[in-house]
Amino acid sequence: MELLKKRILEDGKCFPGGILKVDSFINHQIDPVLMKSIAVEFVKRFSGNRFNKVMTIEASGIAPAIMVGYLMELPVVFAKKKQPKTMENMISTTIHSFTKDREYQVCISKDFLTQEDRILFIDDFLANGNAANGMIDLIDQAGAELVGMGFIIEKAFQKGGDLLRSRYVHVESLAIIDSLDGCKIQIRE
Amino acid sequence: MELLKKRILEDGKCFPGGILKVDSFINHQIDPVLMKSIAVEFVKRFSGNRFNKVMTIEASGIAPAIMVGYLMELPVVFAKKKQPKTMENMISTTIHSFTKDREYQVCISKDFLTQEDRILFIDDFLANGNAANGMIDLIDQAGAELVGMGFIIEKAFQKGGDLLRSRYVHVESLAIIDSLDGCKIQIRE
Repeated sequence: MELLKKRILEDGKCFPGGILKVDSFINHQIDPVLMKSIAVEFVKRFSGNRFNKVMTIEASGIAPAIMVGYLMELPVVFAKKKQPKTMENMISTTIHSFTKDREYQVCISKDFLTQEDRILFIDDFLANGNAANGMIDLIDQAGAELVGMGFIIEKAFQKGGDLLRSRYVHVESLAIIDSLDGCKIQIRE
Repeated sequence: MELLKKRILEDGKCFPGGILKVDSFINHQIDPVLMKSIAVEFVKRFSGNRFNKVMTIEASGIAPAIMVGYLMELPVVFAKKKQPKTMENMISTTIHSFTKDREYQVCISKDFLTQEDRILFIDDFLANGNAANGMIDLIDQAGAELVGMGFIIEKAFQKGGDLLRSRYVHVESLAIIDSLDGCKIQIRE
């Protein structure tokens, strides 16, 4: 997706340790018009798949997921990082975050993830794949079916993409970062 | 907003202690088409105001905020509940959550909230106004200007709306709940 690659090269910032900051247009400040274009690209990439619901995880996944849901006129459900007092009937899983160096629980209500659901999962980043694996665990627990996983940015030098593809998950990443070595952003052509 | 009121009466669930659950279409599972209609209503209600940025707080505010930003072609920034390792140059404030009965820090980067910014704040709920007051504190610290605050649902039997209006904030709430007594949802005409 050329528009996205161009934007990452222009406005993305690279820091030591393989950190790519895109917080001026994706995950802190958001460009909603770019998000719509990103969602259009996801719709194209998954046009051969049949799904009835978009799933994501709070907070940075919500913007792209809601745009895909809007374009497709499908409900969006997001996994929550804290269990609300008022949530019953929920399933949960544990995710290790490398970025934040801690484990956290995420949960989702069984009311909104059921064995009737064919799920397209959308998130901003695919790196080590921990969040993605947690989502697959929730989908399995619910007896739902995972149709595909779409990511705005994949860090191909981390293991998440390989792990998911080795499990035959249909993964689509709109910008694939091959390297951030020397704090230079190298995006796959 | 009739469409929203109708949906709240149909799909909202009332629990003892003044709790209204709208998690099947607003804040856990989301109806993105309804969110677009909600955003259109916000655009109308704030059509007399000049603003250059939409602000919200994670996670439930992101969906309506992104739709307003999309319609108006304006950037959206959301306050974060955890400080990311990689965020420098940030301002923060403390919010007390009645629902979760705890205090939490929220932060925002000074890069995306500046004295140049005229802010429309959007969130899902206005109850005691603690989150809203925290956002006003962040806006004040940044030297930005608050133009208005839009909420999908206001619980008029809690003090947030009165507090904000007594400070001459332009508040617009699309559905005003007068009472949840006896677990009956009473929405203002």
